[in-house]
Parts: sequence; structure tokens; C-alpha cells
Amino acid sequence: MDDKPIYDLFLKLNLPIRSICGGLGTCGKCKVLIQKGSEYLNQVTNAEKKFLSNEDLESGYRLACQTKINAKYIDILQELKPPHFRIFLPSELLFEDFNILTFGIRKKTVLNPAIKKFFLDIKKPTLDEPIPDFERVIAEIIAKDNTIKEDQIEIDFNLINQLPNILRENNHKITLTLWNDNEIIECEPNDTTENNYGIAFDIGTTTIVGYLVNLDNGKVYSLASKLNSQTAYGEDVITRLSFIKNDQKGLQKLNLAVLNDLNNIISKVCEKSKIKSSQIYEATIVGNSVMHHIFLNLDPINIGLSPYIPVIQKGMNIKARTLNLKISKNGYVYIVPIIAGFVGADTVGVILSSNINSQKDLTLAIDIGTNGEIILGNRKFLATGSCAAGSALEGAHISDGMRAAAGAIDTIKIDPQNFDVSYSTIKNKKPIGICGSGLIDAIGEMLRSKILTRSGNFDKEFIDQGRILRRNNNIEFIIAKREETSIGKEIKISQNDIRQIQMAKAAFYSGTRLILKHLDTKLEIKRVFLAGAFGNYINKYNAKFIGMIPDISDENIFQIGNAAGTGAQSLLLNKDLREKVKKLLKKIQYIEIATKEEFQKEFTDAMYFPHFNLELFPTLKEYNNIPKR
Amino acid sequence: MDDKPIYDLFLKLNLPIRSICGGLGTCGKCKVLIQKGSEYLNQVTNAEKKFLSNEDLESGYRLACQTKINAKYIDILQELKPPHFRIFLPSELLFEDFNILTFGIRKKTVLNPAIKKFFLDIKKPTLDEPIPDFERVIAEIIAKDNTIKEDQIEIDFNLINQLPNILRENNHKITLTLWNDNEIIECEPNDTTENNYGIAFDIGTTTIVGYLVNLDNGKVYSLASKLNSQTAYGEDVITRLSFIKNDQKGLQKLNLAVLNDLNNIISKVCEKSKIKSSQIYEATIVGNSVMHHIFLNLDPINIGLSPYIPVIQKGMNIKARTLNLKISKNGYVYIVPIIAGFVGADTVGVILSSNINSQKDLTLAIDIGTNGEIILGNRKFLATGSCAAGSALEGAHISDGMRAAAGAIDTIKIDPQNFDVSYSTIKNKKPIGICGSGLIDAIGEMLRSKILTRSGNFDKEFIDQGRILRRNNNIEFIIAKREETSIGKEIKISQNDIRQIQMAKAAFYSGTRLILKHLDTKLEIKRVFLAGAFGNYINKYNAKFIGMIPDISDENIFQIGNAAGTGAQSLLLNKDLREKVKKLLKKIQYIEIATKEEFQKEFTDAMYFPHFNLELFPTLKEYNNIPKR
Repeated sequence: MDDKPIYDLFLKLNLPIRSICGGLGTCGKCKVLIQKGSEYLNQVTNAEKKFLSNEDLESGYRLACQTKINAKYIDILQELKPPHFRIFLPSELLFEDFNILTFGIRKKTVLNPAIKKFFLDIKKPTLDEPIPDFERVIAEIIAKDNTIKEDQIEIDFNLINQLPNILRENNHKITLTLWNDNEIIECEPNDTTENNYGIAFDIGTTTIVGYLVNLDNGKVYSLASKLNSQTAYGEDVITRLSFIKNDQKGLQKLNLAVLNDLNNIISKVCEKSKIKSSQIYEATIVGNSVMHHIFLNLDPINIGLSPYIPVIQKGMNIKARTLNLKISKNGYVYIVPIIAGFVGADTVGVILSSNINSQKDLTLAIDIGTNGEIILGNRKFLATGSCAAGSALEGAHISDGMRAAAGAIDTIKIDPQNFDVSYSTIKNKKPIGICGSGLIDAIGEMLRSKILTRSGNFDKEFIDQGRILRRNNNIEFIIAKREETSIGKEIKISQNDIRQIQMAKAAFYSGTRLILKHLDTKLEIKRVFLAGAFGNYINKYNAKFIGMIPDISDENIFQIGNAAGTGAQSLLLNKDLREKVKKLLKKIQYIEIATKEEFQKEFTDAMYFPHFNLELFPTLKEYNNIPKR
Repeated sequence: MDDKPIYDLFLKLNLPIRSICGGLGTCGKCKVLIQKGSEYLNQVTNAEKKFLSNEDLESGYRLACQTKINAKYIDILQELKPPHFRIFLPSELLFEDFNILTFGIRKKTVLNPAIKKFFLDIKKPTLDEPIPDFERVIAEIIAKDNTIKEDQIEIDFNLINQLPNILRENNHKITLTLWNDNEIIECEPNDTTENNYGIAFDIGTTTIVGYLVNLDNGKVYSLASKLNSQTAYGEDVITRLSFIKNDQKGLQKLNLAVLNDLNNIISKVCEKSKIKSSQIYEATIVGNSVMHHIFLNLDPINIGLSPYIPVIQKGMNIKARTLNLKISKNGYVYIVPIIAGFVGADTVGVILSSNINSQKDLTLAIDIGTNGEIILGNRKFLATGSCAAGSALEGAHISDGMRAAAGAIDTIKIDPQNFDVSYSTIKNKKPIGICGSGLIDAIGEMLRSKILTRSGNFDKEFIDQGRILRRNNNIEFIIAKREETSIGKEIKISQNDIRQIQMAKAAFYSGTRLILKHLDTKLEIKRVFLAGAFGNYINKYNAKFIGMIPDISDENIFQIGNAAGTGAQSLLLNKDLREKVKKLLKKIQYIEIATKEEFQKEFTDAMYFPHFNLELFPTLKEYNNIPKR
């Protein structure tokens, strides 16, 4: 028997632990406190010695990914009375209590769902009209809705055999559920037309949201969200691709993880809205290309290798049972098409929700998630590209970074005179870390206070004074002092952290510039849509101030929330949009940003605050007093 | 443990025993000789005492359906060295060596199969054209065949994941199999276009034939046939419907029986033609409504109850794997639509093959199988009905009747002077029984020799003379004397047998008359097509002479062989015919013959030879000398 990693055990308990490096022991994030049972575990590894202080080690802290139950004790433990272990998980490690952005702004969608229910009083057969059961049913459907073509209606093969008995046992009064004017997918006794639901899923790299929608009135009846359990195998898509490459069953594990998440969400919304999962007849799915492939159990490996080729772009209708999704057993899943490379169906959702393809002016939409996507266009053209930008903005790779959970510092002000810090936290709890909006605020404020220069360095003048300290070969600015926090130590932003944010914001800005250059347009960006969980909480002015988005006035910057999820809802509510998407796809240009020749220079210039070239941000007068060095 | 019927054991050995009554012990046909092991069997039952003579019983004959291994011996037998039993099966009980009609006359079908194979040299992706795998493949298909619409091509979900590796491991040279211009169902390395097969099945009540067709040139490469194993549960559809009604697992058993038959046929044709079953991409299926339902595992019970309603009429495309048919795992089965009541897809096949719907003159087609179907029409109208007529003509319910197997008397001549009989047998073996064509000949000859009167009675004048004997409350005509046969007894035709044939021929003739009346047409039948296994071997003149078909000249009577099977082949070779069938179905009137008010009178009149009303057969001058009584 092998050693058993405790990381896997938590996964089995449906308590996946956040991991940035995918369990390689290179991020040091998965710190847990072993309160009982340490004697059965392996020795502390070198990776742990690197990330845990002596104090940590003495207290019993370990890295979950490095900690294993020693194989030789496993038999013994089975004999002993449980619990064998008591392990404390710091709250930011647990996938609960997060501020997941679940609502987007949905334009009024014309109702024309793929699912239609018909209550029918079927004509009984006679010797003079001995019409077979199925054909009699079709005749009644056509009589009710003459837009439907008789010739095109089929029936799920599993269902045909139920038809004769349901008809005869219910005096020929039945309710039929028709999908896409094309296939009968349910057949129930009596009138069940009022139970007609669909579910729209947004599978984010980090977060999954499911919206239960009533298909008769278009209203979201309930929603549920969950951190993507795949996070246990790696925080970003690149780490997950490596996991798939290196583990023979990697794809299967990730597929199962996300499938369980979706089925959990289905259970949750059904419970909330007191409906049966069999009354959900269709699901729509958006997600980036890697999430799309993993959900479909398609090998995504070529998406990660130049020239970055997905297996399939096209939208697909797949039986829910084929995918093991627990909705109506004959129901369908509409897989929203992806665009190219990493730019997936989520971006299709953003385009639909933002209506960027109908804008007169050149418009930029950026979807800020664990993966970042850029869409640039107007009613004449559309271009997209992706950048691996989001994870720092969600707190990854940041010393005291965390997601937008209770206790996260989310807004920050710095007094330029004495560098005193005031901040707010989510749910007003004692702070335990900084989330993305806090980081953007902190950097904006540090720039305005001239603690930072435009190149992102701490100004030497202030180092080793007050809150700015040189420690462990790094320079740190103390945001919250030890006594203010609930983690027994201070919360800080380090020089390294600032570099991470610089890279993220540079990725968005330089990506936008490169797409613009590729389009070879003279047009100027007049409008910006910020989409995604993170984008909805940040300070618009500071986003512009640090140079993440172009210099346009705040009133032309719109926070559109979880636009990908709203897009998935619209596609559920109006099947004609699926045809529209087919046409949109032909129009969209995909640009592989990072392989462009000018990428390196553009990226380096964009690392400056707000940019190497200040002329690009003419309204930000404050920068005139901030040194460049 | 229960007693084990030996009838079931033979089924398990893939040696189903012919049964007319479905194992109820009411037909006495399943006579077997127990040569060893009788001590472990149950006592002779009353049913057996009824059908077996003392001589039979003393020799060790039993009825297979009545004979069971006594439960108390089953354990003991397992300890003993096998063989425990030796059982002799008379050749006509075994489902081998039958003259199954497998060839029909196929008109030259324009080749346009639903299956198309493409060998493609796919463009490799680049950074400038990072097209996903599936979309690159589609582009090449469109380039090769611009009649196919890009938008409509999908891919079997099980296949998508194979595409990337097959492409990359074979230098982007692959063969794709496209179904119905709509779905990629196979994806193979390199050029496999030459392996492109389909299989057409005709599921008869008694006989199943499968034709392996090369879809590139339309040729039948091999064929195999088998007696329908469902016969073990009942010889005709009515008996099988009762079996389904009375046995909770009846439908499942019959479905499994026919499915195994089809899969056996697939194995056989693949072996004969040295191909793999995975190279068969599509199957077409014809069969009467009950066979259709059982193959699809649809409850056929309402077909047997007034107003005789099938579950579904419509043609269907179903994945072979859904039906457990062992062809290409992503391949399709095209289920040919049925018409109404018992009139099924086999009749659709007959219409297609006979082209009755293009005839200028009013034409009658009768399909003589275990079930009989009547089609009447021309290029303007078409009407069909069914009659339970066939089984006597196949030897069932006839004392010495048998199917057209080796040793069956198939043609008969009677010397009108001395009533001496000359006959031929199939394969020139010593006679063991009479098959349908022999029966028709015998009756024709007995009429011409005035042994029979027009009402089907033996002429009293000749009874108890020579070959005409009164025995066991019956009158019998000896066709072959004891010493001529290989069964140790004479072969005869009894008064009861003649009644059976009268009923069968009356069913066809009166059915035709009733359809004509229903159509209310002044047109006369100018042409007759005889379809079906039996129809191909009978003497055309005698068929007319006994009054089974109208009085038209022999040159307008055509034997078109297994027209149902030929129709299935045509539908495999040209998918446009499937659209044609949809239109045909709208044109066909279905007439429920047996429920017509005039049925009884018409049927009774048609019981006469050739008919009560001689004027209907004006050319049969010989009848002027044959008494009516």
C-alpha cells in the first residue's frame, strides 16, 4: 500500500483544499495545522521547510500537499477507534464563504426556449382512424403550434415505450416536453406544464455558478455557486493541463470533479426552489476552452501547446445522460461554442451579454477571472485574445493575498502625509488577508502617496521607515498591523506582490494594445466593460489609475458582473441566440497575443504605472509628480 | 429449483425448436425422440397422449415442449459424467437446411447511400490559422463534396476525443465516415475508404435474412438467413402476442431472440466476406408491425387488440449501440416505417421493390409469408390490408405439412384416371412431408381429378377407394405411401388440411375483394405480383386455379421473390428513397379487412374453389365439370 496524501482525503470528504501549484509543494499555500495524529504522518519535507517558519513547524503546521499518512500505519489505523486525526484548516483554504459574483446584468431576453411543454387531450384511435400512438400525439402538437413541422418531430428512443401506457392509463390526457421543435424528451400523465425549468452553468476556472431558470417566465428562481473542485489539482488552467499530462487518469479526475460540482449545484437549486431535478430539461454551459474540454472529457492538452488547438469549436447538443449530468434523463445540454485557444464559451457569453457586437463605438470588454479575456470591437468587427492575468488579481501568488472572502481587506486608503492606512474588510471581520480590489486600491494609494515609483519600486527615500520595511531580501509595506489582524501576524504587500499585480495589469493593457495594432484601426476605445467576479468589486478609477484599462472617463466604464453566466442564461431562454452565436463566431477574429513579435516590448512598457508612455493616460495628472525610476 | 423444460435447453444451445402453439402443447408438432436419459424426465403428459400414438410413446417419442428435466435430478446430473441425454430431432424441427428465399429482384438502384467515406489529408494548424481539429476536418470534407452543408455536420460524441490523436499520429491523413451528410460516425488512420458496408435485414415472422451490401458499388457481397428464433415461442404473431401478454418477461425474451439472430447473421456474413463487423456502418430493417415492435423492444400488445394500434409508424434512425446491434459502434440503424395494424415495413419494402405505385394499371401485390399482406393500387392510389393467411401455406396446421426443406414434396401430379400420384421433392430426398407449393399443386390436381368438389369436400363417390380413406373421423388422400417415405408412415392430405388451405386462399382473395370494394373503383386488376418466400416457388396457374389470386393470364403474374428484403437493400443504397417512403406513407390507405361488415360473406364465398361465383374466374373452363357440392 502507498502513503496516502491527506490532500486527497480532503477531496474525498468534498472539502477540496485550495492549491496554487497543483500539489507540487512550490506555492506554500496549503498550510494546515495537525492537532492530532501527527505521529502517523510522514516526515516534514524540504518543500515544507522552505515555506514554514520554525514557529509554524513547532506549532504543528504542515503543507497539506506534502503530508501523507505513512503506509505502514494504515492497517493499524483501521483497527483504532476514530477519529485518528484532527486537522485545522485556515478559513481561506476552505472553499466556502466566498463572495462569488453570481448575478450579472441580463438584458431583457425574448422568451423562446428550446424546451416547450404541451398539455394535450389526444384523440382516441378508432377502426376508421387507426393512427399509431406517436402519430396521433404529433398531430395534436401541430394543431397547437403550427410553426412546428410534423416531419421533424422525433422521440427519445427510451421514451417511446412509455407512450402507449401513459396515454391509455390517463384517458389520453398527457403532457409532452418538446426540445428544439424536434424531439419529445418527456411524456407525463396529466398537466405538468407549469414545471418547466432549465439551468445555466458558468464553469469558471475557480468558481462555478448555476442559475435555475423558469423557462416559462425567464426568471432566475434560485442559484448556487461552488468553488471549482478542480482547484485542488491546480489553481490555473496551465497547472491543470500539466496535471493531465502527468497523470494518466488526470483528465478523468478533473472531469469527475467538475461533474460532481455541477450535480451538487443542481441538487442545491432544486432544494432551494423545491423542484425535482427531472423537471430541469435543458442545461447550457459556458466556460473557457480548458474548462469546456474537461467537462466534455476531451483531452485539452493541445490547447496548451503551440499553436494552441482545441479539439472542437462548434456548439453541441448532447444528452444530459451521456455527460452524466443529473437533470431530466432525456434532457439536453447545450454546450456553448468556444472561440479559439484559451478563449472559450465564457467569452461568447460576455459578447452576448455586453452586446459589444452592436456598439457603434469601439468598445473594450475584459473578463477578469483566473484567466483573462479581452474582447475589442463594435458592430462591424470583433477580436478576442486571452492573457494569463487573473490569478494575481484573485490573491494568488501574493504573500497575504486571498479571495474575496470574509475578513479580506477590500478597500484601502493611505494618508499621503504619514502613510497611515485605513481599510475596510468583507463582512467587517478582523482582517486575514487582502483580496483583489484591496490590492488595486493599495497600489493606487501607494502611488499617490509616492511610496511607489511608476516602475513599481518602493521609493528608496522611505524604505526602513514606519510601515515600509526591508525584510528577508524583500521590501514590504504593512497594511494591517499584527494586533489588528486575526492571524497573529501583520498583513503586508511586498515588492514581489507588486510585481505580480504589475504583470497582471500589463497583460490586460498590452493585450488590448496588441489586438488594436493587429486590427490596424484608427478608432479609439470609447467604452470599457469590466466583466467577471473580480471586475465587479474593484474601484473603476484605480483600475484605470494603475493602467489596467485605457484612460477614459469613469462614466464610460461599466461593471457588467458575471456576463458569461448571464450569456448562458440568455442562451437557455432563447434558442434563436444559438443561431446568432453561429454567425458571431464567423465574425470573431482570434489573436494569439503572447506569440506576437511586439509582445515583449508592449508588455514591458505596460509594466509601468500607468504605462511607460504617460501620453497614453493624459487625464491622470497626478502622475506628473510621481517619479518614474 | 424448478423442472427444466428441454425446449428451453435447445434454445440455449442455439437450436431453437419449431413450435406452432408457443409451447402450450396444443399443436403436437415438436416431436423428439429421447434416445438416452428418459429416466430423468417428467411423466408423459395428457397433451402428449393426445398427439403421440402408442407406437410413438413406446419408441420414446415425446413433445419437446412438454418434456422437462425433473428438478430432483438436476443436482445429481451435475455430478454425473455427460452426456446425460441423447435426443434425436427430426430434421423438420431443426432450423437448418431450409429453402429460405433470400434473393429478390432488385431494380437498379441509384447509388446514394447514407454512408460516405472520405480519405482526407488535413491541413495542419498554424499560429496564423489556429483552427480547432474538428473544424479543420469539416473544411476538408466540404472541399471534397460541396453538396454537404458545413453547418450540419456533427460528430458522434464518443468519437471526438479520438480525433486529435488520430490526426497527429498519422500525419493528418485520416478517413472519416459520414452518415446522412450529418454526423461523423467513424474516424480511422490512413485510407480505409474501400471498406464500406451496410446490411439490410428482413425480419420475417418465420425467417430472417441479412444481406451484406457493399455501399460503394451496391453489390450484395454475401447473405445469411436463419429461422427466427422467436418461432420457439410461437409460430405466428398472434401466438407471440399472447406469449408477451402472459409472460412478464415475454417481450424481453422475444427481443433477445431476434437480436441474437441478427447478430448471428452479422457474424456469418462478415465471416463469409472476410470483413469486420465494425466496417458495417448502417443497417436497414424491414418486418411486419409486430416484428418491428419486438425488435425495438416496443410493446406490440395494442396491435393485437381492436382498433389495432401500433406505437409508432414513422421511420427512425437509431444508433446501433442503443439497439445492441453489433455493427460499427457509432453506426446507425434505419428502421423502415410501418404502415398500420399488422401491415409493416416489409410491405413498404414490397411497394418499393414492385414499384406498384408507378403502375399505370391496377395492380395487386400479395406478400405470402407467415403473415399475408395485400397491396392494391397504381400510380394514383395505394391501399393495403393484412390477413392471417400464410401459416397453412407454410405447412403449419397441416397433418404432414412442413416448410420447404430437403425431403418436402414440392410439386404433385395426379392421374385423373387412376388417381396415381407422381411428385418431386426438394433435394430429391425421400419424402418426409409436403410444403406449401406441394399443397397448392395437390389441391389443384385433386380438383382436376374431381377427387374434390368446389366446396372442398372429398367427392363421396370415391371415398374408401384406393388412396382416399376414411380414418379417425377424417378423410385422407394418400400422396406418398409408407414404403416411399423416410418417416415410416404415409404422407397424406386430410379434409382438415384442405379446410386450412381454403381458409388461407380465401383470406387473400376476399381481402383483395374487400379492399377493391372499399376503394369503390371500376378498375380491374391487370397484374399480380407474388412476393415472399412461398410465393416464389408455387405454380402460378395453380395459385389462380384454386382461387387465391384473380383470374388473369399467367404472363401478368410475376414472382418477385423476397421483395421486402430487396426493398430494405434499396433503402440502404439510396437514402433519397427514405424521403420517397415518407411521401408514399401519406398516400397509402390502410384497410382493416377483418372488421368489415361484408367480410364474413366474402370470406365464405371465397372458400369455394375457385369461388362461389364462377363468373369471377371465366377462363377456368375446367370448373364446368367439377361439382360444387
